[in-house]
Order: sequence, then C-alpha cells, then structure tokens
Amino acid sequence: MVKPESVEELKALVGEENVLTSPEELLCYSYDSTVLQHLPEIVVLPYTTQEVAATVKLADREKIPIVPRGAGTNLAGGTIPIQGGIVLSLTRMTQILEIDTINMVAVVQPGVVTGKLQAEVARKGLYYPPDPASLKVTTLGGNVAMNAGGPHALKYGVTSDYVMGLEVVLPNGQVIRTGGKAIKNVTGYNLTQLFVGSEGTLGVVTEIILRLIPQPQSSGSVLAAFSDLDDAATLVNRILKAGVTPAVIEIMDNMTIQTVDDYLGTGLPRDAAALLLIQVDGVRQAVEQELKTVAQLCNDNKATQVEVARTEDEEETVWEARRSISPSLTRVRPNKLGEDISVPREAIPDVVRRIEEISRQRDLPIVIFGHISDGNLHPNILFDQTDPEEIERVEAAAGDIFEAATAVGGTLSGEHGIGLLKQKYLRLDLPTETIEVMRTVKRALDPNNIMNPGKIFPDN
Amino acid sequence: MVKPESVEELKALVGEENVLTSPEELLCYSYDSTVLQHLPEIVVLPYTTQEVAATVKLADREKIPIVPRGAGTNLAGGTIPIQGGIVLSLTRMTQILEIDTINMVAVVQPGVVTGKLQAEVARKGLYYPPDPASLKVTTLGGNVAMNAGGPHALKYGVTSDYVMGLEVVLPNGQVIRTGGKAIKNVTGYNLTQLFVGSEGTLGVVTEIILRLIPQPQSSGSVLAAFSDLDDAATLVNRILKAGVTPAVIEIMDNMTIQTVDDYLGTGLPRDAAALLLIQVDGVRQAVEQELKTVAQLCNDNKATQVEVARTEDEEETVWEARRSISPSLTRVRPNKLGEDISVPREAIPDVVRRIEEISRQRDLPIVIFGHISDGNLHPNILFDQTDPEEIERVEAAAGDIFEAATAVGGTLSGEHGIGLLKQKYLRLDLPTETIEVMRTVKRALDPNNIMNPGKIFPDN
Repeated sequence: MVKPESVEELKALVGEENVLTSPEELLCYSYDSTVLQHLPEIVVLPYTTQEVAATVKLADREKIPIVPRGAGTNLAGGTIPIQGGIVLSLTRMTQILEIDTINMVAVVQPGVVTGKLQAEVARKGLYYPPDPASLKVTTLGGNVAMNAGGPHALKYGVTSDYVMGLEVVLPNGQVIRTGGKAIKNVTGYNLTQLFVGSEGTLGVVTEIILRLIPQPQSSGSVLAAFSDLDDAATLVNRILKAGVTPAVIEIMDNMTIQTVDDYLGTGLPRDAAALLLIQVDGVRQAVEQELKTVAQLCNDNKATQVEVARTEDEEETVWEARRSISPSLTRVRPNKLGEDISVPREAIPDVVRRIEEISRQRDLPIVIFGHISDGNLHPNILFDQTDPEEIERVEAAAGDIFEAATAVGGTLSGEHGIGLLKQKYLRLDLPTETIEVMRTVKRALDPNNIMNPGKIFPDN
Repeated sequence: MVKPESVEELKALVGEENVLTSPEELLCYSYDSTVLQHLPEIVVLPYTTQEVAATVKLADREKIPIVPRGAGTNLAGGTIPIQGGIVLSLTRMTQILEIDTINMVAVVQPGVVTGKLQAEVARKGLYYPPDPASLKVTTLGGNVAMNAGGPHALKYGVTSDYVMGLEVVLPNGQVIRTGGKAIKNVTGYNLTQLFVGSEGTLGVVTEIILRLIPQPQSSGSVLAAFSDLDDAATLVNRILKAGVTPAVIEIMDNMTIQTVDDYLGTGLPRDAAALLLIQVDGVRQAVEQELKTVAQLCNDNKATQVEVARTEDEEETVWEARRSISPSLTRVRPNKLGEDISVPREAIPDVVRRIEEISRQRDLPIVIFGHISDGNLHPNILFDQTDPEEIERVEAAAGDIFEAATAVGGTLSGEHGIGLLKQKYLRLDLPTETIEVMRTVKRALDPNNIMNPGKIFPDN
C-alpha cells in the first residue's frame, strides 16, 4: 500500500500535475497489449532523470513496487502492475538529444517513439533498423527493456545490436552510465546488455545511446508460393548459402494466406501451403543480381508462383499482404494470443506441422506467420474471450506450443519477453541453475525487490 | 598457499599426469604476451567439464585463487596468476563438437584454436569472422573471455556478436548453460553477454555455441595514400554514407609506413601521412561496383595514390603490408607496448595528432595503426626493456594515451581487455558507481573472490 504521505512526497518531488491517482487515470495504466489487467495505486510521469531517481529512491525506501512503462504495447504482461504500487510512465521523456551523423550515433530519452527516430535519422541518410510491428507507437525505452526485434533481424539484428550505452536508474535510486559512443568497448563487464531485455526488473533506462547505419541505396522484393512447406523452409538456407542475406524473409502459412486473402481480396494463392515474402537491399547493382538469384532459387525449389517487385509500388503490394495479417485475424475470431517462439532454423517445418496438429487437437484456429529466416515464428491462437471453456483450451494450446519449441532446442520468446504470461513455462526452457544465477543478479541489484516485481521468474 | 593435501586431491580428481608442479612447468604458465610475470603454485589441465567443475569446487572450498587460461596471447595481463594459486589451462579441451550447416552454428570446447575453427567451417562454405591477429594460436575460450575483435569488426562484429550460448562453470563449481541455437532469444537475462568479456573473473567457459554465416562469394581491396591525415579519416564516413560497408578499413600512420617499408622493401609511399587499406566483399557484381565507388571516393578525397587489387595475388600484396607491421617493429626497438584505445570515429585525427605529440614529449617512437573504421587504434610504444628510465617514460606515455582517448568519449580498450595493465586507469573511463555495480555482480557470483582475482578492478 502506498501511504498518503508518500503520495504527497511524490507530488512534491515531480509536481502535482505529474502524479495521477484518480480511478479513471489509474485504469489507463492497468493493462498492456495482452488480456491481463491490474490496477496501480499511483502513476508518476517524470520529465527528467533526477525525477525518476527521486521516485525510485522513495519507492525503495518505502518498499513500494515500481513498474517502468513505455507505450504499453507489451505482449507478455511485462508492464502490468501486478502488485499495485507505482507505475512510472516514461512517455514524457521524449527528446531526441542528439543525432551524430559523423559517428552515426543517436542519443535519445526512453519515451521517443521508435518510428519517430527512424524518420528523423532517415532525413539525414541514416537508418535505425529494429522494426517491431508496433513501431508507430512503441517507445525506444520499451524496446530496450524487452529487446524488441522485427522482420529485419536476420540481416540487421535486434534492438540489443544497436544499444551502445545506457543511463540507468538503479533500484536504489543511484544513476549509472554504461558503454558510450565508441563502437568497440571491452572495458569491464557488459552491463549494457545485462539491462537490455531485463524487462524493467533491474532498473529504469533514462537515456539510450544507439548505433545507426547508412541507409541502404535500394531494395527489391520477391513473393513466392509453395505447395510444400518443406520447400519453403529449405529455400531459406539455399538463399543464404548462395551468399545472399536478404533484409527480410517472412512466411505465411496456408491459414494465414486464406485469412489475409479474405480480408484484402487481391488474389493471393489460397491453396499454397506457404508463402514467402523476401526483401533484399543494398547497392543498386547488387540488389538486381540478388533478386535474380533469389527468383531462380525459388523456381529451383519448386515454387508454384514467383513474383519479383522492383519499383516502390510493386514492393508496396507485396508487403501490404504482410501488414494485413493482424487486422485480418480479428475477422476470424474476436481475440488472439500471439506467441513468439524461436527455434533453430532447421526445426521450422516440424514445428509448423506440430502446431497444425495442436490446432486440430485443441479445436482452435492457429495461424502461423513470422520471421522464418531467423526461426522466430508467431503462432496466433484465435479465440473468443467471452467463452471460459475456450480460454482453457487456449491455455492448453499455448503450453503445447512452448513444449514443441523447447523440445527442438528453441526458446519461449524471440522478441516479446516473458513478463507474466510465460513465467510458468520458464522451467521448460531454462535449467534451474541458470534461473538461480539470474535471480542472484536480481537480488544483488534490487535487494528490496521493488523493481517490476513478480515478472520473468516464477514464485518471485 | 595451496596445501599439499589439495595438490593430492587435485591429482586424484583429474589424474596425476594432468597436474603440473615442477618449477620449469610452472614458469611456462607465469606469463602472457605482456612483460608481466608471476608464478602459479600449480597448473591443472582438465579434459572435461566435470574435471573443471571439480577443480573449481575445490578451489572455492579452500579459497585458492584460480586463473582460467587459453593460449596466453593476452595483451593486458589477464591470465597472469598474480596471487599464485591454480592456473587452469583449457588447452586440452580442443574438440569441435558440432558444425551444424543448416542452422549455421558451431559448438566447440574452449581450447579450440580460432584459426582451426575458421578453416574447418570454410570447408563447408561457412565463415566465422572474428579475426584477432593471434588467430593462428589463440583459443576460442580466450576470445570469449576477452571479447576479442579484429580487422573485420566494422562489417562483421566481434566475438560477442557470434556467441549464442555458453556452458560455464561458476565460481562455486556449479555448471550452468545459457542461450542456445535459436538466433533470437529474449528469455530471461542475457547471462551469455555478461560472461563474454568478463576476463575469466565470473566463471570458466567450458563450451561455446557460435553463430556462423555464409562465406562471402568474392572480395577485392584498395590501397590509398594520403598526404593529409584528415583526408584519410573523413574518407571512412564518405564510404559508409555511399552505402558501402567494407569488410575491413585499416590505417597505417607515417611512422608505421616507413617501418614496414624498411622491413619489406616493396616501395610503399614513404612520405604519406596515412595509408588506408580497404577490403570489400560480397556477391561478385556488388564487389566490382563497390571497388569502383571506393576508388572514386579515394580520388575525390585527395588520395595521392590509389591501387585496386582484384585478384587473390594482388590482394595478397596489399595485405602483406598490414601483416608485416608487428614483425617490422622489433627492428626499431626490442620491445613494444601495444595499446588498444577505441574512440568515436570523428575523434580519430585529433587523437592521432595528440599521440604524435606524446611521442615527441616522451621521446619515444610510437607507431599508430589499427581499425580506423570502428575507431579502434593500436598505438604501439617502442622501447628497450633493459632501460629502467625508458620504462618510466613508457608508463607515462601510456597514461597520456589513455587520457587522450577518454577525453574524447573513448574507452581504454576496444578488444584487448583491462587485466592488470589498465586497472589503474579504469576510473578515467568508468564512473565510480558503474564500477561499483560491476563489483556487486562479481561479489554475488564469486563471494570468495577465487575466480581470476585481482583483475579488471583496482584494489580488488
């Protein structure tokens, strides 16, 4: 329970107008992009690192749970204030502090929206590749906390590959800096990467130094349909072995194709077992050569249809299909549980077939799409939240999917995180001793367990 | 002091023939590639993870310092057993356990020599890019402990970018596994990257899962001379901005050029202020286009000489100059202290000029070469170890160089580590609070401070 004196103290620290306590306001910070919900007792909206530090220091002294939060697009319940306490919203720290075009580095506050940074650096001929689907609303602080990925991960990596340094408010309220603008840095332990992906359980990120790269000169795309899933899956390796690293390779399974085609009506190959969407980018001549190579390899691998998109408009048509997946799904059933398993590439056909089996066994539509080239699949279970019996089957199907992924050496989460939703499956993935080392680190940095408590680890 | 009973116990655990105690044998494990030296009390050479775990468990129980060691090519004193105790040599754990060509992953023991893995995967059309200069003798376990880099870091990254998972024996003797074969993995904290670069102070790496990539189809190189250092430095950004990411961009300053030319006699441009060696790789047509672009940009940036090498033989001539730097230096003075500062790219011309000034002020030859594209320079101070007065000046010059690097937002070490040699400069680079967090992690995982004690942190 947050004491009334603490509320008054917080108001004095960050300004009365930046502390929310009314039920309507608290409700807005009680949920994320899952179906989970829990009310905080108070919401604090700081503008500066000093205000964050003062708030955290008070929380530590009073042993109040504190949950850092960006835009709340989290898909694993990581920002739900499950133990009440304070929600610390970083959405007012929205400054791009620096775009350094010579060293190709950006320095940003955590509340900067990912898409906004991408647009700003693009104007200067630079590129920030990580592209979670939510990039138009999601914040860079949230991306760092969850180590967000996206379709471009195969060639360009995920958020962690771009974080060069951080300013972090520790659970005791102390402010530290890690890393810096030097590209290569092996001085001391890699604390930067310890904080990236720690889901707000080790501290609050208040400033981020991000690596940028030059914008690719041009791009082109290939859409290829396959009547056999294995042909689509083995094509990925043939492309890579040919020396071509596409920027993106996405897969849509048959059910995804049909759902999107019902929605768009643009005539996708409805009978195909799988559709691959492939994008290459780079210097112009290389793109042209790579498009030819990819198209040829698609044909060699028994593609039933191959389309090459060279102009911006042609590419737009290809990628519209990919972007339409999520909106099209709500036409099938009102709710969806989007999973995020990541498996060794080789295991993909088997895992897809196993998920199709789970779909039949649990009598639930499951569409499968995602980033086939890096093994990161998003099986989406479609259901109706108002049917309690169906929710039970959804739970069971999710458990089946996690078992299928970990059985082939895969992991519970490629880019969404563990949060609350996947806690109970953590032991499927990590040995007890490894979890214990993580908890040792957590206890060392947060002895009062105030920082986003109850997340990642079961029985915390 | 290691008690005689402990020596007997160790012999029983790992076999008498795998425990060394004679003065001659201990001497072999008393030094690395610096001028530092300290005798261990005993050397243990395990073959298995179980033997490593048993040795560490005994060390922890008896509070004996234990220093993991690969090939001893360390350039910062990281493997010197400065407090005596046990040197744990991993050089007998030399198995490549798996090369998985579909998932593009290798699983290796820590004693595998880096160059050997590169050769083995090349036979299967795959590529392991990290290329420390010592790759013909250095071990992958050592590379992981120090997060070794190399010339290919700009395009291909350093060791940490390839480590997907580890088996680690913790300071208490417990064996844990982190990460796995899935490319994207955000399940729990990133312990893998906490161990990478921790210089053997947090545990002993006993197995490594490494990401591999397809071998580039072809390559080509450009050698360009400049009469003005700034023209060489600004060229790097012009190349990157043009959308070309070379595999390698190396710089040699005037003194390096002269030293190498004296050694090789192949007619390098002795009067040039700087020489850039640039390599591009990828699909054939792209390489040809990129070579043209790079050569054109060299000319635009006032290069006084530009040579393009397209065939293997032509490339060999270019890179022979780079490889001859180290052997040529011993002709100037018998000893060298190779530093490893890493600075934001923009700061390079100023830092090089400052080091030239330090060279004059301290009256010591300092050659400067290194990985200009990622800001990682290797100023090598040349001296004679038998002259104590000169050694004092070397110390002072090294301090000056570290101050110059950290003053522009750079770091003490880009790829060599801190070890013993740079400890006293750590506070120049990292804020006290950041060091304290690192020490908190160290204490949490190694409460008895047995694992490579006295390294990285001052007054440990």
